[in-house]
Amino acid sequence: MDTPLHINGERLWSRLMELAEVGEYDAHSGLRGVNRLALTDADSAGRQLVVGWMRAAGLAVRVDAMGNVFARRGGTDPDAAPVMSASHIDSVATAGAFDGCLGVLAALEAVQALDELALSTRRPIDIGFFTEEEGVRFGTDMLGSAVACGRIDIAHAHALTDAEGTTLAAELARTGWNGTHPAQLEPPHAYVECHIEQGPVLAAEGLTLGVVTGVQGISWQEVTIEGRSAHAGTTPTELRRDAGLAAARVITHVQELVDSRRYGELRGTIGQLRLAPGLTNVVAHQAILTVDLRNPDEEALSAAEGELAAYLKSLEEAGLTVRTKRMARTAPVPFDEGVQKAIAQAIEDLGHEFRHLISGAGHDAQEVAAIAPTAMIFVRGEYDGISHNPREYSTPEACHAGADVLATVLYRLANED
Amino acid sequence: MDTPLHINGERLWSRLMELAEVGEYDAHSGLRGVNRLALTDADSAGRQLVVGWMRAAGLAVRVDAMGNVFARRGGTDPDAAPVMSASHIDSVATAGAFDGCLGVLAALEAVQALDELALSTRRPIDIGFFTEEEGVRFGTDMLGSAVACGRIDIAHAHALTDAEGTTLAAELARTGWNGTHPAQLEPPHAYVECHIEQGPVLAAEGLTLGVVTGVQGISWQEVTIEGRSAHAGTTPTELRRDAGLAAARVITHVQELVDSRRYGELRGTIGQLRLAPGLTNVVAHQAILTVDLRNPDEEALSAAEGELAAYLKSLEEAGLTVRTKRMARTAPVPFDEGVQKAIAQAIEDLGHEFRHLISGAGHDAQEVAAIAPTAMIFVRGEYDGISHNPREYSTPEACHAGADVLATVLYRLANED
Repeated sequence: MDTPLHINGERLWSRLMELAEVGEYDAHSGLRGVNRLALTDADSAGRQLVVGWMRAAGLAVRVDAMGNVFARRGGTDPDAAPVMSASHIDSVATAGAFDGCLGVLAALEAVQALDELALSTRRPIDIGFFTEEEGVRFGTDMLGSAVACGRIDIAHAHALTDAEGTTLAAELARTGWNGTHPAQLEPPHAYVECHIEQGPVLAAEGLTLGVVTGVQGISWQEVTIEGRSAHAGTTPTELRRDAGLAAARVITHVQELVDSRRYGELRGTIGQLRLAPGLTNVVAHQAILTVDLRNPDEEALSAAEGELAAYLKSLEEAGLTVRTKRMARTAPVPFDEGVQKAIAQAIEDLGHEFRHLISGAGHDAQEVAAIAPTAMIFVRGEYDGISHNPREYSTPEACHAGADVLATVLYRLANED
Repeated sequence: MDTPLHINGERLWSRLMELAEVGEYDAHSGLRGVNRLALTDADSAGRQLVVGWMRAAGLAVRVDAMGNVFARRGGTDPDAAPVMSASHIDSVATAGAFDGCLGVLAALEAVQALDELALSTRRPIDIGFFTEEEGVRFGTDMLGSAVACGRIDIAHAHALTDAEGTTLAAELARTGWNGTHPAQLEPPHAYVECHIEQGPVLAAEGLTLGVVTGVQGISWQEVTIEGRSAHAGTTPTELRRDAGLAAARVITHVQELVDSRRYGELRGTIGQLRLAPGLTNVVAHQAILTVDLRNPDEEALSAAEGELAAYLKSLEEAGLTVRTKRMARTAPVPFDEGVQKAIAQAIEDLGHEFRHLISGAGHDAQEVAAIAPTAMIFVRGEYDGISHNPREYSTPEACHAGADVLATVLYRLANED
């Protein structure tokens, strides 16, 4: 096995900070946030900055019909499929500096490290970034990678609109990121993505890095419970149809599903709940809540959804009506064991401790996993791994460590047969 | 016992409808609502209308320093304390035609019936209406009656401000309802108030009328639970401090307090609940909810508050912090058994069935109960007794029946020694 590689950690950090100035805003008390929604002027400026760095590193840049951007470092075998590493630079409206950007800039550092070490590889290495990973502007997350990997049709994606009714195609044209390359990606030999964890697991265990075993399945539903409003002082329990009480029972029921362990590694969250009319002395006639269920196992996720549906149905016996609306549903994506092993080996060779963990959030890697052996490197986040928030933070050392691992893995995979 | 009296039901109904046109607005789909917040121009116009009817009935009208309005029908014994019947004509912003107004106009019909029947009484009969019963504009309900009966100091009441910062004293002066009579009420011989039930009990039992045994004690608290926001996909249960889940447990705990019957006729309602940040995929870091507890028994109400406080305290063991803010607290007010019996007798003599019931809402009668024997007549509301809503409705027959009872009781009480 080759000696592990080290990238230029100072340059990585300074680029992360410079990119974070594009779309920067004053969150509060001096805290700087990032707002770079996909295909806005800020996103376009961020793209120009990163493409400039790619070109300065001597890389040829191509843009596809979805605005996905790739840069290739050539290999010695012109017929070999490339190894690929990408992520995204679009952000949510209240972002930090790291989500997505770390993976894009770490991959750039990886190929620059190979150049600076004068190391050649048999396979080409493609790095880059996908369009609209966050899904905040056009409503579908992992959009660019989903089109590139065949899950979503490009015509459908081009026709998606933002809140103002502007189509993605129009914004691609306006910003000049409507490239000429076909969006459909030729399957790479392997795909590796470096990303911040966006969760507390690594920090809680004092670890810097993690090997990601896959992405959880995600089930989002909006549940509307209709009861009957009634005066809090005059209406006895037996005459109430209390939508708020029913919502509370749904919340505790979801927690029981989690706590029971009957559904393995199920996670359940009710993050939104609104009561109407929302007055102190009026029994609520309506409750609208969201249920976020996640599970690395599809069968267990479906079973949990089924038990919840039965519970919701049982509320109708008490005179309530319940409607559910599917907001999102993705199946779990297990990552390739070979790529996971290559990542684990590189981490060990670089002298770090690590653990395997599942990704709770969605990533471009889960789209690429449909066409190529794929896995991810997670880098620890501070403050319980808070993300989608200006407080999002990973240390320079952690970012450096993740990029070292990425460079080492890409180099090794690019020399595979 | 004297023959029961009958009032002019058609005139009562036509006045109710005419008064409802003052402050009328189009709620939706042709439904007319009433918005007559205390001491607004609409309330002032409503007052003028009612005072005009009083004067047309030959009554002398006096206005006190709180804007409370009384009209006296004289008795044969000039030294005898009066029998009194009043209510209110101010409304919430989305009211119907009956809340308060029925009692005021039924009392007017009662004295007019005595005139029309040429019946004299030993004691005078005072009828009228109190200022700002709803408490919606100046923040304290039963305000006019609370000052008249000594619970609230008039200087404090005059200094209360509405949402624009305008004082009650300024609005009394602007509208011309700053009367010269002292606000402190001379204790009447007895006080009887006729009011819509504002609840479903009478309708559920097919009854038109009820004898009110008292007003429940009311405890309103705002509970703020602080946890920690966390990513729904990445944060395992043991690392969560989920304010939304804790709020759900508070809701089901309050219901358990009610269902246990350990606190007698306890009622518990959580009508408001807000989660922050309120996102599908973020564990809530904050939940703010209101707890409305009611009980006809003070000891039981206090004990239920105590058990809830202990439960909230126990949440802190799970890493949450809990703050409570007292929004309102009134002790239960039992009504006078003699006046209740007089009402029950009048109902029987008029050939109606009835039941005794507790009032879940607050009424001016509970203030007067501090200085005089007091009880109330409840008139059934349709549509589960919905109130504080344009759909509020009692039938002409039910209103007529309530006013007949009021007239009969006032006549009998006014002839007591």
